[in-house]
Amino acid sequence: MKYLEEMIEREGRVLSGEILKVDKFINHCIDVDLFDKMGKAFHETFKDRGVTKILTLEVSGIGIAVMAGYHFKVPVVFAKKTVSKTLGSDVYRSSVYSFTKGVTYDIMVSRDFLCEDDRVLLIDDFLANGKALEGMIDIVKQADAQVVGIGIAIEKAFQAGGENIRKQGYDIRSLAVIDHFEDGKVVFASGD
Amino acid sequence: MKYLEEMIEREGRVLSGEILKVDKFINHCIDVDLFDKMGKAFHETFKDRGVTKILTLEVSGIGIAVMAGYHFKVPVVFAKKTVSKTLGSDVYRSSVYSFTKGVTYDIMVSRDFLCEDDRVLLIDDFLANGKALEGMIDIVKQADAQVVGIGIAIEKAFQAGGENIRKQGYDIRSLAVIDHFEDGKVVFASGD
Repeated sequence: MKYLEEMIEREGRVLSGEILKVDKFINHCIDVDLFDKMGKAFHETFKDRGVTKILTLEVSGIGIAVMAGYHFKVPVVFAKKTVSKTLGSDVYRSSVYSFTKGVTYDIMVSRDFLCEDDRVLLIDDFLANGKALEGMIDIVKQADAQVVGIGIAIEKAFQAGGENIRKQGYDIRSLAVIDHFEDGKVVFASGD
Repeated sequence: MKYLEEMIEREGRVLSGEILKVDKFINHCIDVDLFDKMGKAFHETFKDRGVTKILTLEVSGIGIAVMAGYHFKVPVVFAKKTVSKTLGSDVYRSSVYSFTKGVTYDIMVSRDFLCEDDRVLLIDDFLANGKALEGMIDIVKQADAQVVGIGIAIEKAFQAGGENIRKQGYDIRSLAVIDHFEDGKVVFASGD
Protein backbone atom coordinates (compact mmCIF):
# COMPACT_ATOMS: atom_id res chain seq x y z
CA MET A 1 0.00 0.00 0.00
CA LYS A 2 1.76 3.06 -1.33
CA TYR A 3 0.19 5.33 1.30
CA LEU A 4 1.64 3.30 4.17
CA GLU A 5 5.06 3.01 2.50
CA GLU A 6 5.22 6.77 2.05
CA MET A 7 4.26 7.32 5.66
CA ILE A 8 6.99 4.93 6.80
CA GLU A 9 9.51 6.80 4.64
CA ARG A 10 8.36 10.17 5.94
CA GLU A 11 7.61 9.46 9.61
CA GLY A 12 9.31 6.17 10.47
CA ARG A 13 12.77 5.88 11.98
CA VAL A 14 15.22 3.02 11.77
CA LEU A 15 16.84 2.25 15.11
CA SER A 16 19.82 0.03 15.71
CA GLY A 17 19.04 -3.68 15.84
CA GLU A 18 16.84 -3.43 12.74
CA ILE A 19 13.97 -1.96 14.69
CA LEU A 20 11.61 0.30 12.77
CA LYS A 21 10.06 2.96 14.98
CA VAL A 22 6.52 3.75 13.85
CA ASP A 23 5.25 5.33 17.05
CA LYS A 24 4.19 8.51 15.22
CA PHE A 25 1.38 6.80 13.35
CA ILE A 26 0.94 3.17 14.49
CA ASN A 27 1.96 2.11 17.97
CA HIS A 28 1.86 5.11 20.28
CA CYS A 29 0.16 7.84 18.29
CA ILE A 30 -2.45 6.37 15.96
CA ASP A 31 -3.22 7.92 12.58
CA VAL A 32 -6.87 6.90 12.42
CA ASP A 33 -7.19 7.78 8.74
CA LEU A 34 -4.29 5.42 7.97
CA PHE A 35 -5.90 2.69 10.11
CA ASP A 36 -9.15 3.19 8.21
CA LYS A 37 -7.31 2.79 4.89
CA MET A 38 -5.57 -0.35 6.20
CA GLY A 39 -8.88 -1.80 7.40
CA LYS A 40 -10.39 -1.11 3.96
CA ALA A 41 -7.43 -2.75 2.22
CA PHE A 42 -7.77 -5.91 4.32
CA HIS A 43 -11.49 -5.96 3.60
CA GLU A 44 -10.85 -5.59 -0.10
CA THR A 45 -8.45 -8.57 -0.01
CA PHE A 46 -10.41 -10.94 2.21
CA LYS A 47 -14.04 -9.87 1.79
CA ASP A 48 -14.99 -13.11 -0.01
CA ARG A 49 -13.64 -15.45 2.66
CA GLY A 50 -16.70 -15.47 4.90
CA VAL A 51 -14.81 -13.92 7.83
CA THR A 52 -16.83 -14.24 11.06
CA LYS A 53 -14.24 -12.93 13.51
CA ILE A 54 -11.00 -10.97 13.63
CA LEU A 55 -8.32 -12.08 16.06
CA THR A 56 -5.42 -9.86 17.09
CA LEU A 57 -3.03 -9.48 20.00
CA GLU A 58 -2.82 -6.73 22.58
CA VAL A 59 -1.61 -3.97 22.36
CA SER A 60 -0.61 -2.61 18.96
CA GLY A 61 -2.84 -4.85 16.88
CA ILE A 62 -6.07 -3.63 18.47
CA GLY A 63 -6.54 -0.33 16.66
CA ILE A 64 -5.90 -1.82 13.23
CA ALA A 65 -8.15 -4.78 14.00
CA VAL A 66 -10.98 -2.50 15.16
CA MET A 67 -10.89 -0.49 11.92
CA ALA A 68 -10.81 -3.76 9.96
CA GLY A 69 -13.74 -5.01 12.04
CA TYR A 70 -15.58 -1.83 11.16
CA HIS A 71 -15.30 -2.66 7.45
CA PHE A 72 -15.99 -6.40 7.84
CA LYS A 73 -18.79 -5.80 10.36
CA VAL A 74 -17.57 -8.66 12.56
CA PRO A 75 -16.41 -8.77 16.21
CA VAL A 76 -12.75 -8.32 17.09
CA VAL A 77 -11.15 -10.52 19.72
CA PHE A 78 -7.80 -9.58 21.16
CA ALA A 79 -5.59 -12.22 22.76
CA LYS A 80 -4.44 -11.18 26.22
CA LYS A 81 -0.94 -11.37 27.57
CA THR A 82 -1.84 -11.09 31.24
CA VAL A 83 -4.28 -12.87 33.49
CA SER A 84 -7.00 -10.64 34.97
CA LYS A 85 -9.87 -11.08 37.39
CA THR A 86 -12.35 -11.14 34.54
CA LEU A 87 -10.46 -13.47 32.18
CA GLY A 88 -11.08 -16.68 34.14
CA SER A 89 -9.22 -19.92 33.53
CA ASP A 90 -11.23 -21.41 30.71
CA VAL A 91 -8.93 -20.18 27.96
CA TYR A 92 -7.05 -21.24 24.88
CA ARG A 93 -3.39 -20.60 25.58
CA SER A 94 -0.22 -20.56 23.52
CA SER A 95 3.40 -19.64 24.29
CA VAL A 96 5.10 -16.98 22.22
CA TYR A 97 8.81 -16.26 22.17
CA SER A 98 9.66 -12.59 21.67
CA PHE A 99 13.01 -12.08 19.93
CA THR A 100 12.85 -8.34 20.66
CA LYS A 101 12.46 -8.84 24.39
CA GLY A 102 14.19 -12.21 24.75
CA VAL A 103 11.34 -13.67 26.78
CA THR A 104 8.55 -16.21 26.35
CA TYR A 105 5.04 -15.13 27.26
CA ASP A 106 1.61 -16.72 27.06
CA ILE A 107 -1.24 -15.39 24.98
CA MET A 108 -4.77 -16.31 26.02
CA VAL A 109 -8.23 -16.19 24.49
CA SER A 110 -11.36 -17.07 26.44
CA ARG A 111 -13.09 -20.16 25.06
CA ASP A 112 -16.27 -18.09 24.89
CA PHE A 113 -14.98 -16.13 21.90
CA LEU A 114 -13.79 -18.69 19.37
CA CYS A 115 -15.80 -21.71 18.23
CA GLU A 116 -15.43 -24.32 15.52
CA ASP A 117 -17.71 -22.43 13.12
CA ASP A 118 -15.50 -19.36 13.17
CA ARG A 119 -13.65 -18.25 10.04
CA VAL A 120 -10.91 -16.08 11.45
CA LEU A 121 -8.92 -13.22 9.98
CA LEU A 122 -5.70 -12.63 11.94
CA ILE A 123 -4.43 -9.05 12.14
CA ASP A 124 -1.18 -7.70 13.53
CA ASP A 125 0.96 -4.60 13.13
CA PHE A 126 4.30 -6.34 12.45
CA LEU A 127 5.40 -9.66 10.99
CA ALA A 128 9.06 -10.48 11.56
CA ASN A 129 9.89 -13.85 13.10
CA GLY A 130 6.22 -14.75 13.09
CA LYS A 131 6.09 -16.13 16.61
CA ALA A 132 3.08 -14.06 17.69
CA LEU A 133 1.23 -15.07 14.53
CA GLU A 134 2.06 -18.75 15.10
CA GLY A 135 0.67 -18.39 18.63
CA MET A 136 -2.58 -17.00 17.23
CA ILE A 137 -2.78 -19.76 14.60
CA ASP A 138 -2.26 -22.31 17.38
CA ILE A 139 -5.14 -20.80 19.36
CA VAL A 140 -7.47 -20.89 16.34
CA LYS A 141 -6.54 -24.56 15.84
CA GLN A 142 -7.30 -25.32 19.49
CA ALA A 143 -10.78 -23.91 18.90
CA ASP A 144 -11.16 -26.12 15.77
CA ALA A 145 -11.83 -22.88 13.92
CA GLN A 146 -10.22 -21.90 10.62
CA VAL A 147 -7.76 -19.13 9.72
CA VAL A 148 -9.04 -17.76 6.41
CA GLY A 149 -6.54 -14.94 6.01
CA ILE A 150 -3.83 -12.90 7.67
CA GLY A 151 -3.52 -9.11 7.44
CA ILE A 152 -0.27 -7.45 8.45
CA ALA A 153 0.62 -3.76 8.38
CA ILE A 154 4.41 -4.09 8.05
CA GLU A 155 6.33 -7.24 7.16
CA LYS A 156 10.09 -7.53 7.51
CA ALA A 157 10.72 -9.88 4.60
CA PHE A 158 14.34 -10.41 5.63
CA GLN A 159 13.16 -12.29 8.69
CA ALA A 160 11.78 -15.81 8.42
CA GLY A 161 8.21 -15.44 9.73
CA GLY A 162 6.39 -14.62 6.51
CA GLU A 163 8.03 -17.39 4.50
CA ASN A 164 7.48 -20.02 7.21
CA ILE A 165 3.82 -19.20 7.61
CA ARG A 166 3.11 -18.96 3.87
CA LYS A 167 4.74 -22.42 3.47
CA GLN A 168 2.07 -23.77 5.82
CA GLY A 169 -0.51 -22.62 3.28
CA TYR A 170 -1.73 -19.41 4.93
CA ASP A 171 -2.59 -16.40 2.84
CA ILE A 172 -0.87 -13.27 4.14
CA ARG A 173 -1.52 -9.74 2.91
CA SER A 174 1.18 -7.38 4.15
CA LEU A 175 0.52 -3.75 3.32
CA ALA A 176 4.18 -2.71 3.42
CA VAL A 177 6.97 -5.23 2.88
CA ILE A 178 10.45 -4.22 3.94
CA ASP A 179 13.16 -5.93 1.94
CA HIS A 180 16.00 -4.58 4.06
CA PHE A 181 17.38 -1.53 5.83
CA GLU A 182 20.22 0.40 4.20
CA ASP A 183 22.08 3.29 5.83
CA GLY A 184 19.23 3.88 8.23
CA LYS A 185 16.67 3.91 5.41
CA VAL A 186 13.91 1.47 4.57
CA VAL A 187 14.08 -0.38 1.24
CA PHE A 188 10.72 -1.86 0.30
CA ALA A 189 10.27 -5.09 -1.62
CA SER A 190 8.80 -4.30 -5.02
CA GLY A 191 5.05 -4.81 -5.53
CA ASP A 192 2.34 -4.68 -2.91
CA MET B 1 -26.89 5.62 26.04
CA LYS B 2 -29.76 3.16 26.08
CA TYR B 3 -28.06 0.83 23.61
CA LEU B 4 -25.05 0.34 25.90
CA GLU B 5 -27.21 -0.06 29.01
CA GLU B 6 -29.24 -2.77 27.31
CA MET B 7 -26.09 -4.55 26.21
CA ILE B 8 -24.74 -4.44 29.78
CA GLU B 9 -28.02 -5.88 31.05
CA ARG B 10 -28.04 -8.60 28.40
CA GLU B 11 -24.36 -9.52 28.12
CA GLY B 12 -22.62 -8.15 31.22
CA ARG B 13 -22.02 -10.13 34.37
CA VAL B 14 -21.59 -8.88 37.91
CA LEU B 15 -18.75 -10.64 39.72
CA SER B 16 -18.01 -10.49 43.41
CA GLY B 17 -16.15 -7.40 44.55
CA GLU B 18 -18.39 -5.12 42.49
CA ILE B 19 -16.63 -5.98 39.27
CA LEU B 20 -18.70 -5.79 36.11
CA LYS B 21 -17.52 -8.23 33.48
CA VAL B 22 -17.97 -6.79 29.98
CA ASP B 23 -15.53 -9.01 28.12
CA LYS B 24 -18.21 -10.11 25.63
CA PHE B 25 -18.44 -6.70 24.00
CA ILE B 26 -15.80 -4.31 25.39
CA ASN B 27 -12.58 -5.63 26.82
CA HIS B 28 -11.80 -9.00 25.29
CA CYS B 29 -14.27 -9.39 22.47
CA ILE B 30 -15.05 -6.02 20.88
CA ASP B 31 -18.47 -5.23 19.44
CA VAL B 32 -17.31 -2.82 16.75
CA ASP B 33 -20.80 -1.56 16.02
CA LEU B 34 -21.17 -0.61 19.70
CA PHE B 35 -17.77 1.11 19.63
CA ASP B 36 -18.85 3.03 16.55
CA LYS B 37 -22.02 4.18 18.33
CA MET B 38 -19.97 5.20 21.38
CA GLY B 39 -17.50 7.11 19.21
CA LYS B 40 -20.42 8.92 17.55
CA ALA B 41 -21.96 9.76 20.94
CA PHE B 42 -18.71 11.30 22.19
CA HIS B 43 -18.42 13.25 18.95
CA GLU B 44 -21.97 14.52 19.32
CA THR B 45 -21.19 15.71 22.87
CA PHE B 46 -17.78 17.26 22.32
CA LYS B 47 -17.72 18.22 18.64
CA ASP B 48 -17.67 21.97 19.37
CA ARG B 49 -14.69 21.85 21.73
CA GLY B 50 -11.99 22.08 19.07
CA VAL B 51 -10.55 18.67 19.97
CA THR B 52 -7.11 18.18 18.39
CA LYS B 53 -6.15 14.89 20.01
CA ILE B 54 -7.66 11.97 21.87
CA LEU B 55 -5.72 10.49 24.77
CA THR B 56 -6.45 7.06 26.21
CA LEU B 57 -4.66 4.35 28.13
CA GLU B 58 -3.63 0.88 26.98
CA VAL B 59 -5.29 -1.63 26.70
CA SER B 60 -9.07 -1.42 26.88
CA GLY B 61 -9.39 2.26 26.01
CA ILE B 62 -7.74 1.91 22.61
CA GLY B 63 -10.60 0.47 20.57
CA ILE B 64 -13.13 3.02 21.84
CA ALA B 65 -10.66 5.86 21.33
CA VAL B 66 -9.92 4.75 17.76
CA MET B 67 -13.62 4.77 16.84
CA ALA B 68 -13.96 8.18 18.51
CA GLY B 69 -10.90 9.39 16.56
CA TYR B 70 -12.58 8.15 13.39
CA HIS B 71 -15.53 10.48 14.03
CA PHE B 72 -13.43 13.43 15.27
CA LYS B 73 -10.81 12.95 12.53
CA VAL B 74 -7.98 13.52 15.02
CA PRO B 75 -5.04 11.34 16.09
CA VAL B 76 -5.34 9.00 19.06
CA VAL B 77 -2.50 8.73 21.56
CA PHE B 78 -2.46 5.88 24.04
CA ALA B 79 -0.48 6.18 27.24
CA LYS B 80 1.82 3.22 27.78
CA LYS B 81 2.24 1.21 30.93
CA THR B 82 5.53 -0.43 30.04
CA VAL B 83 8.85 0.88 28.78
CA SER B 84 9.87 -0.40 25.33
CA LYS B 85 12.85 -0.02 23.05
CA THR B 86 10.98 2.46 20.91
CA LEU B 87 9.45 4.59 23.68
CA GLY B 88 12.65 6.35 24.71
CA SER B 89 13.07 8.31 27.93
CA ASP B 90 11.71 11.68 26.86
CA VAL B 91 8.25 11.11 28.26
CA TYR B 92 5.55 12.64 30.41
CA ARG B 93 5.01 10.25 33.29
CA SER B 94 2.41 9.88 36.02
CA SER B 95 1.83 7.30 38.75
CA VAL B 96 -1.53 5.55 38.93
CA TYR B 97 -2.78 3.44 41.82
CA SER B 98 -4.98 0.54 40.76
CA PHE B 99 -7.52 -0.42 43.41
CA THR B 100 -8.45 -3.56 41.45
CA LYS B 101 -4.89 -4.85 41.39
CA GLY B 102 -3.56 -3.19 44.54
CA VAL B 103 -0.47 -1.85 42.77
CA THR B 104 0.90 1.47 41.58
CA TYR B 105 2.10 1.69 37.99
CA ASP B 106 3.42 4.44 35.76
CA ILE B 107 1.74 5.66 32.62
CA MET B 108 3.88 7.35 29.99
CA VAL B 109 3.36 9.48 26.91
CA SER B 110 6.19 10.52 24.62
CA ARG B 111 6.73 14.28 24.62
CA ASP B 112 6.45 14.14 20.83
CA PHE B 113 2.71 13.56 20.98
CA LEU B 114 1.31 16.25 23.25
CA CYS B 115 2.06 19.94 22.97
CA GLU B 116 0.71 23.10 24.55
CA ASP B 117 -1.62 23.78 21.63
CA ASP B 118 -3.42 20.51 22.06
CA ARG B 119 -7.06 20.40 23.11
CA VAL B 120 -7.40 16.89 24.44
CA LEU B 121 -10.39 14.59 24.78
CA LEU B 122 -9.71 11.82 27.31
CA ILE B 123 -11.37 8.45 26.67
CA ASP B 124 -11.52 5.35 28.84
CA ASP B 125 -13.70 2.28 29.20
CA PHE B 126 -14.36 2.52 32.95
CA LEU B 127 -14.49 5.30 35.54
CA ALA B 128 -14.54 4.09 39.14
CA ASN B 129 -11.98 5.57 41.50
CA GLY B 130 -10.71 7.83 38.74
CA LYS B 131 -7.02 7.19 39.33
CA ALA B 132 -6.23 6.37 35.71
CA LEU B 133 -8.11 9.46 34.57
CA GLU B 134 -6.25 11.64 37.08
CA GLY B 135 -2.99 10.24 35.70
CA MET B 136 -4.00 11.24 32.18
CA ILE B 137 -5.09 14.71 33.36
CA ASP B 138 -1.70 15.08 35.06
CA ILE B 139 0.09 14.17 31.83
CA VAL B 140 -1.95 16.69 29.81
CA LYS B 141 -1.05 19.36 32.42
CA GLN B 142 2.63 18.49 32.17
CA ALA B 143 2.38 19.18 28.43
CA ASP B 144 0.67 22.54 29.15
CA ALA B 145 -2.15 21.27 26.99
CA GLN B 146 -5.84 21.43 27.87
CA VAL B 147 -8.39 18.73 28.68
CA VAL B 148 -11.57 19.85 26.87
CA GLY B 149 -13.69 16.82 27.69
CA ILE B 150 -13.78 13.31 29.05
CA GLY B 151 -15.65 10.41 27.46
CA ILE B 152 -16.27 7.26 29.49
CA ALA B 153 -18.11 4.11 28.47
CA ILE B 154 -19.18 2.91 31.93
CA GLU B 155 -19.09 4.94 35.15
CA LYS B 156 -19.58 3.40 38.56
CA ALA B 157 -21.29 6.35 40.25
CA PHE B 158 -21.05 4.72 43.69
CA GLN B 159 -17.26 5.16 43.59
CA ALA B 160 -15.68 8.54 44.09
CA GLY B 161 -13.83 9.15 40.81
CA GLY B 162 -16.54 10.86 38.80
CA GLU B 163 -17.52 13.25 41.57
CA ASN B 164 -13.91 14.16 42.39
CA ILE B 165 -13.01 14.90 38.79
CA ARG B 166 -16.21 16.86 38.05
CA LYS B 167 -15.48 18.97 41.15
CA GLN B 168 -12.22 19.99 39.51
CA GLY B 169 -14.29 21.44 36.67
CA TYR B 170 -13.92 18.72 34.05
CA ASP B 171 -16.80 17.81 31.82
CA ILE B 172 -17.41 14.06 31.79
CA ARG B 173 -19.85 12.25 29.51
CA SER B 174 -20.41 8.69 30.71
CA LEU B 175 -22.50 6.60 28.34
CA ALA B 176 -23.75 4.23 31.03
CA VAL B 177 -23.83 5.24 34.69
CA ILE B 178 -24.20 2.48 37.24
CA ASP B 179 -25.85 3.61 40.45
CA HIS B 180 -25.27 0.34 42.28
CA PHE B 181 -25.37 -3.43 42.00
CA GLU B 182 -28.29 -5.30 43.55
CA ASP B 183 -28.56 -9.09 43.78
CA GLY B 184 -26.02 -9.51 41.02
CA LYS B 185 -27.87 -7.07 38.75
CA VAL B 186 -26.91 -3.64 37.50
CA VAL B 187 -29.05 -0.66 38.53
CA PHE B 188 -28.43 2.34 36.32
CA ALA B 189 -28.64 5.94 37.47
CA SER B 190 -31.58 7.61 35.81
CA GLY B 191 -30.99 9.82 32.79
CA ASP B 192 -28.06 9.67 30.37
